[in-house]
Amino acid sequence: MSKTIDIVEVGPRDGLQNDPVLLDTDVKLEFVERLIDAGVKRMEAASFVNPKLVPAMADSAELMTRVPRDRGVSYIGLALNEKGMRRAIDAACDEINFVMVASEGFGKRNQNATPMETADALDRIAPLALEAGIPLSATISVAFGDPFEGEVDRAVVAELARRAEAAGAVEIALGDTIGVADPWEVRARLDAVREAAPKARLRVHFHNTRNTALANVAAAVDAGVDVVDASAGGIGGCPFAPKATGNVPTEDVVYMLERGGFETGIDLEKMIAVAKWLEDEALKHPVESLLSKAGGFPSAAAPATAAG
Amino acid sequence: MSKTIDIVEVGPRDGLQNDPVLLDTDVKLEFVERLIDAGVKRMEAASFVNPKLVPAMADSAELMTRVPRDRGVSYIGLALNEKGMRRAIDAACDEINFVMVASEGFGKRNQNATPMETADALDRIAPLALEAGIPLSATISVAFGDPFEGEVDRAVVAELARRAEAAGAVEIALGDTIGVADPWEVRARLDAVREAAPKARLRVHFHNTRNTALANVAAAVDAGVDVVDASAGGIGGCPFAPKATGNVPTEDVVYMLERGGFETGIDLEKMIAVAKWLEDEALKHPVESLLSKAGGFPSAAAPATAAG
Repeated sequence: MSKTIDIVEVGPRDGLQNDPVLLDTDVKLEFVERLIDAGVKRMEAASFVNPKLVPAMADSAELMTRVPRDRGVSYIGLALNEKGMRRAIDAACDEINFVMVASEGFGKRNQNATPMETADALDRIAPLALEAGIPLSATISVAFGDPFEGEVDRAVVAELARRAEAAGAVEIALGDTIGVADPWEVRARLDAVREAAPKARLRVHFHNTRNTALANVAAAVDAGVDVVDASAGGIGGCPFAPKATGNVPTEDVVYMLERGGFETGIDLEKMIAVAKWLEDEALKHPVESLLSKAGGFPSAAAPATAAG
Repeated sequence: MSKTIDIVEVGPRDGLQNDPVLLDTDVKLEFVERLIDAGVKRMEAASFVNPKLVPAMADSAELMTRVPRDRGVSYIGLALNEKGMRRAIDAACDEINFVMVASEGFGKRNQNATPMETADALDRIAPLALEAGIPLSATISVAFGDPFEGEVDRAVVAELARRAEAAGAVEIALGDTIGVADPWEVRARLDAVREAAPKARLRVHFHNTRNTALANVAAAVDAGVDVVDASAGGIGGCPFAPKATGNVPTEDVVYMLERGGFETGIDLEKMIAVAKWLEDEALKHPVESLLSKAGGFPSAAAPATAAG
């Protein structure tokens, strides 16, 4: 059993967007290059949203003019509306990701739209990407729970998936935006989404807010998912806030999957080095991943410290 | 699907034993009582080892004279040799747990014995517990990897399980002492152990050193295991050391399992309060659990903070 799992590195977008430290474009570019050196082949690198609302992504167009284009990496840009979609196309993103919301509460606050209004918006702007020949994916955010309303109807998630596939999305991600999912619900929602959107490739996006992200990744992989979002160091939560909500750390996902017999194409030691670079040089604050503290599986040649 | 999973709370033993802070017996007793108030029914509370080597457990006999005996709680005492076994029996432990080691490297350093020598020791002292009518369990430590040698032979783990069952252990725990297990190997080793010891109840003991403990718990539960060790707050790693190796946090396990439709009998909010008491009043240093920071699943009545 050796199966390939594709990791979509979201550190440069979802990670940095939610970090209290703003990085210069030069440092972002170094981040991107370090990720590529570690083996990353798909990367969420830019977001074409209102720069006044999301200052960390204001340099997305410039960043996209400077990222290396000759290293076999597919860069994903985020778009929420027509203006963003046109900017993402102009920036020559290799893929464009649209964000739907699965609940009223979060939708109203995050993009002033109900779930079905986000599906309507995708219907309107999807043709722009398709005409430009750019693969389109859709993330269904708060797919496992909403910070304002609690439970999110599984049927709404399935209906959004159906709408996304009908609009032309070739890949659909279930996003656990607030980190509430459990492995059994992951399987149940993936089943519902697969039935509603049988042609789309399924992808998962977990936050480790309640320590379940790795368990949810394992459950998704067991359910046949072979694309997993992750963020170097687990950045994406605020390290100074009491409620940390980081993305699942890339190096922790890589450790678990590779140790479990899967191939990710990512070099664990190099990815740990990226996390340490974020911690020591770029962001200058602790990151949440555990592999960057514990290191990989111990080898007989280099004894680790015994534990109790 | 609502199935009961028994949580064995190991905070008072494996947690405190590896914490840099030594608690007075009075405070330990308060810890035990708070755990009972939160719903704990089985608890690893004492260790009858050399008090010079493990000063945090030196008051085990006294603690056992003072714990409440009328609240339906089963107290587990740890023993590694005949002297410890006699002390555990004298202290009226409700259950006794013996520790086997699955690798030479860890075994030599932890209890100066090879894997099969630990099985021989169990053969010699198990009759003492059985004659006293006290249920005996065995934990196979470093069952997924050794800090000095790396890989641990699955066949050795299975053979130790066979020996434990033959010696009279009614429950066998697989211990991931250094936190290296992955969910797929968890299932493979559980299968091997079940074949080798078909009558014993299986139990799992995971550390979250590499962020995989919750995933490993979920895998074990999926494989039919219904007894899980966990530690309030995730204590048991040293918060001041660079390589944290805490037990899987009880409140995080309870959240995941209850959200997934299982029953643990533990009140999540009360268990979070125990973790906060450890952090603020007893140990006075941060604990590793995430539920104690994030809180449980948001309710519509009490909106949580939105996340990115």
